[in-house]
Amino acid sequence: MLAEHTYKQFDADLEAVRARVLEMGGLVEDQVNKAIEALIGQNTALAEEVIANDVQVNGLEVASDEACTQIIALRQPTASDLRMILTIIKTIADLERIGDEAVKIARFTVKTLNNDRITIPRYSEIKYMADLAIKMLRTSLDSFARVDASAAANVARQDMEVDEEFHLIARHLITYMMEDPRNITLFIDLMFVVKAIERIGDHAENISEYVVYMVKGKNVRHTSLEQLERELE
Amino acid sequence: MLAEHTYKQFDADLEAVRARVLEMGGLVEDQVNKAIEALIGQNTALAEEVIANDVQVNGLEVASDEACTQIIALRQPTASDLRMILTIIKTIADLERIGDEAVKIARFTVKTLNNDRITIPRYSEIKYMADLAIKMLRTSLDSFARVDASAAANVARQDMEVDEEFHLIARHLITYMMEDPRNITLFIDLMFVVKAIERIGDHAENISEYVVYMVKGKNVRHTSLEQLERELE
Repeated sequence: MLAEHTYKQFDADLEAVRARVLEMGGLVEDQVNKAIEALIGQNTALAEEVIANDVQVNGLEVASDEACTQIIALRQPTASDLRMILTIIKTIADLERIGDEAVKIARFTVKTLNNDRITIPRYSEIKYMADLAIKMLRTSLDSFARVDASAAANVARQDMEVDEEFHLIARHLITYMMEDPRNITLFIDLMFVVKAIERIGDHAENISEYVVYMVKGKNVRHTSLEQLERELE
Repeated sequence: MLAEHTYKQFDADLEAVRARVLEMGGLVEDQVNKAIEALIGQNTALAEEVIANDVQVNGLEVASDEACTQIIALRQPTASDLRMILTIIKTIADLERIGDEAVKIARFTVKTLNNDRITIPRYSEIKYMADLAIKMLRTSLDSFARVDASAAANVARQDMEVDEEFHLIARHLITYMMEDPRNITLFIDLMFVVKAIERIGDHAENISEYVVYMVKGKNVRHTSLEQLERELE
């Protein structure tokens, strides 16, 4: 009876921390969506909201990390339970960094629009790229929620597309800089915004790799797409 | 007797994984040093060496991560032993990413020097900034080796200096771009090299924050320098 009680308590603890990770994931996805909406809609108030909300993201990271340490210390999980806890510890670190990238995007909006009303080119391209990165994040979080690694190869492919978009937009921004060198500073700041979106894709891919580890017990951090597809068969 | 044997085995396992982290740290520090030396000495062969060695960094990350999971599963550490294992898991992730930044710097050297022999300005500034970031990395690894958190406030201060250097060099590069818009692409690539050095500083600061957690049991990831100094008193 005691063993069963302990086991049920472990399940409840694990479920609580899983729920908190998904809450954090939802908040971070929201932060990225708002940061992009603020950028494209030139909405400084919304950008300020993103910056203010980062403290909640950080709080969820610290609380989840502590909860995971407690579970390991008290429940001493092994095998797949331990893999899930370690996956959570790594996932929340990447989610927190996605939150930081959203703040960088929001800071650009605040800084730029406080200076003067500007027309930034390539918004539709940036929106397209950001939608891809957000889709990667949602897919990775869904995979985590469903304990299902099958989407990992797709996420890896989408990350390649996000990287290509980064290089495409970067080339276009360089053309603008050459045409109008007075705006170089603005375009460089915008290039770091596009870089932040690219990094959101990288973090989303990291999370989907951790899910492969959680489900399959294999570390696929440094494997090719072909190897990854073999692992998922 | 059995308990004592188990305890000794745990100590041996922990010592082995600690030694491997320090080996990985030494290799990564070497990679950064070589990447900077290759950049400044325009040494393509050395840059190629850095790119080739990254597979070793990745291998040490995977092996150390697996060793940590094994230790948790078999030895079920608690309290400070568990904190050390979790610190190692996080530290090797940051070391691996520092390795990736070294590769980015090396790729720039290979790509640029294969195109044509160029004179890149601001090398002395870049060298100064890189030396600071490498010093931060060495201090963080020393803190980990000595299980001593006292250097964390210094590392945080040095990270502020590295960030200031980034902004200073970025402004200088923008001036060059305005003066000679034909070289914008080269200077943007160089700006991402300087950004890579800045990120090496960030990762080194992360490691020193993990050491504070390991020694003091407090998460200081999102605290101010003043709070951090109070924690270290």
